[in-house]
Amino acid sequence: MDNCNIGDLISIKTENTTYTGTIMPSLDDNVIVIKMKNGYNVGILRDNIKSIDVLKKGKKPTYELPPLKIEKKNDLKNIAILSTGGTVASRVDYNTGAVHPAFTADDLIRAIPELLDIANIKGKAVLNILSENMTPAYWKIIAEEIKKEIENGADGIVIAHGTDTMHYTASALSFMIDADIPIVLVGAQRSSDRPSSDASLNLISAVIASTQPIKGVYVVMHGESGDTFCYLHEGAKVRKLHSSRRNAFKSVNNIPIAKINPFTKDIEYLRKPNKVNEGNKINKESESNKKISINTNLEEKVALIKIYPGIDGNIINYYVDNGYKGIVIEGTGLGHAPETIFENIKYATDKGVLVAMTTQTINGRVNMNVYSNGRELQKLGVIGCEDMLPEVALVKMMYLLGNYDTEKAKELINKNLVGEITEISRFDAYY
Amino acid sequence: MDNCNIGDLISIKTENTTYTGTIMPSLDDNVIVIKMKNGYNVGILRDNIKSIDVLKKGKKPTYELPPLKIEKKNDLKNIAILSTGGTVASRVDYNTGAVHPAFTADDLIRAIPELLDIANIKGKAVLNILSENMTPAYWKIIAEEIKKEIENGADGIVIAHGTDTMHYTASALSFMIDADIPIVLVGAQRSSDRPSSDASLNLISAVIASTQPIKGVYVVMHGESGDTFCYLHEGAKVRKLHSSRRNAFKSVNNIPIAKINPFTKDIEYLRKPNKVNEGNKINKESESNKKISINTNLEEKVALIKIYPGIDGNIINYYVDNGYKGIVIEGTGLGHAPETIFENIKYATDKGVLVAMTTQTINGRVNMNVYSNGRELQKLGVIGCEDMLPEVALVKMMYLLGNYDTEKAKELINKNLVGEITEISRFDAYY
Repeated sequence: MDNCNIGDLISIKTENTTYTGTIMPSLDDNVIVIKMKNGYNVGILRDNIKSIDVLKKGKKPTYELPPLKIEKKNDLKNIAILSTGGTVASRVDYNTGAVHPAFTADDLIRAIPELLDIANIKGKAVLNILSENMTPAYWKIIAEEIKKEIENGADGIVIAHGTDTMHYTASALSFMIDADIPIVLVGAQRSSDRPSSDASLNLISAVIASTQPIKGVYVVMHGESGDTFCYLHEGAKVRKLHSSRRNAFKSVNNIPIAKINPFTKDIEYLRKPNKVNEGNKINKESESNKKISINTNLEEKVALIKIYPGIDGNIINYYVDNGYKGIVIEGTGLGHAPETIFENIKYATDKGVLVAMTTQTINGRVNMNVYSNGRELQKLGVIGCEDMLPEVALVKMMYLLGNYDTEKAKELINKNLVGEITEISRFDAYY
Repeated sequence: MDNCNIGDLISIKTENTTYTGTIMPSLDDNVIVIKMKNGYNVGILRDNIKSIDVLKKGKKPTYELPPLKIEKKNDLKNIAILSTGGTVASRVDYNTGAVHPAFTADDLIRAIPELLDIANIKGKAVLNILSENMTPAYWKIIAEEIKKEIENGADGIVIAHGTDTMHYTASALSFMIDADIPIVLVGAQRSSDRPSSDASLNLISAVIASTQPIKGVYVVMHGESGDTFCYLHEGAKVRKLHSSRRNAFKSVNNIPIAKINPFTKDIEYLRKPNKVNEGNKINKESESNKKISINTNLEEKVALIKIYPGIDGNIINYYVDNGYKGIVIEGTGLGHAPETIFENIKYATDKGVLVAMTTQTINGRVNMNVYSNGRELQKLGVIGCEDMLPEVALVKMMYLLGNYDTEKAKELINKNLVGEITEISRFDAYY
């Protein structure tokens, strides 16, 4: 029966049905998986297969189209789309299996030509990784590439990024980059080979956002499950909150900044953006008048520990003994940890390790003055991080300890630097 | 100026205002904190204080009321309220500072006499801890106390619990207890000394729930910020998602089972409960016909690791080398981990450690077949845990490894046992 290989277009006959599609890799030798034209995969038990017809042998897809040559429009902003990989820039690789990142930003423009009505688009693939493999070292590369593009005249930047860790990167870039133009991260939850893909609408919306009179780092993703609008989120106030839905990203402890309609190209501000920049004028040919400075010093010896009943406090000692400079605790409730690990926390702070407290409730604010547990932790030197997300606190600590001594980092960790902390969380950000 | 002590009722005069309230402990020697009559604390800088009048010296509050003696009603169910501590059972202790758990369940009944119209109430304090200090050892005590109460004729159980870890306990009891009556955990986000307390309405609603023809473990908390209704959540499908709001608890990947109106005492089912028990009849005097068995074997050498960019994979080796039997990974997206830690994961699975994958997106389902990263992790022996919450997977692994060998635990970790996994997550559980 196995005269066919992964990548072949085949027709499988079972007792009652005929399935046509491309063979995908299967984890189970008893099952043949094919990707059908509608984009969905179906697995068919070998035992139920009556016959297989190979309609077309598979071959490596080739992408050897010439580079794009497009006339620059003087009344449009110059936007650089930097691709780092991920679903927004992915295709299914029928030869090696499942979904792999592959398209360059150039290919994206080819797929969505209407981007050219919104801005002068430049595309560049700066990385090609799955975002689950993102590291602080890659953040530095991205920051450097952003700097280059701004120096080369970009009026706005779009970063195509895998969604798994997009909020970590958005937050890292928020701290690392000081620019007076918008830097907009965008991803997709469904790859562009699927009819239900959100890649195009997200990318169009991100490019719209990148032409706005704002500055700083943002995330643009679907605002609801349907293909209706996208939200513009602040880069250090957003989190992936669903594994598969298109509206997976939510602003936390604040509402999104704006609603973007990718069909009409309209943007509706829901609140005043924190970082307005009305003066972001269009750069002329090879000119650059935009402020840009980056700071790529990051201390990687920083750990995130999530608290749970029965947690082994010695994990803290492990980090301390291995030279860690900072620990972010994802505590319970208002910022608590079991008293059984107080001695371990004391071990850390006594050795000069910066220990900061966030909450695993995600929504809400740490308040370590209400209960005795929180007060004790403060006496041990633990710093409550207000309404900052644990993921953001982790990245911020890497940034602070990469640039300052521990005393200064301790002073800054719970002060708002780039919008990561709001003084009063909006009531309508949680319901 | 300091002729006053913590607990004293004082009147503080500043240039423009007079504050009256009870002195609370202060973390800052330069600040006097008083709790005002409206329940809020205010801190006043010593430098700004013109004068202090002591209106009444403080004294230790005494609670020496006689035990409750209430006539049993034959048409009402017998509900045992077991108090473990936490805000729902707390008062402000003006002598030792902040909010401390103190009230016994008996005191709760005294505070909310209308409970006696809903059920025959028995109160018992089984623990008096802040829930951030909850441990698997305490879960065993709670399970044993529940068993005792059911054997003594309870038709339903209410557990007053601190909210920080209430969902961990609810999930632990879901696995540990096999009973044909409802066991309802309830907490409060604001202590009962504050006018905005949710303690009474939550407790009334929990008692209503405990008289319902259902079985298994549940959580009852406010359904919205206002004092309008409570939700009945499944014990292994619920999570604290806000640090301070009264509607902090949300069902995840499913909708709540029912809406409870604590004013009219009505309950409205939003979906068919998974564990109906129409046959839960009222026990007569000292009789017990209810099924109850508990299993308190828990393997405590189980760890939860949250993934983030730059994570040190050697943390996995640390746990393996310290005799851990299981690790729950809180991965990114559909259940991913950086390829840099694959070798550490292999080290764990090679040594026979059970490694399971959940997602830090909280909402949604793990699907490790979509991307190459997930497929690789499966090849290393990592088990995807469907739409089970990371916190629940942790507790379930403690339970499984406490009762079965690793092979059997591996087989059961992603199978639904008590409602912790739903085959298809409801679309309307995320918006």
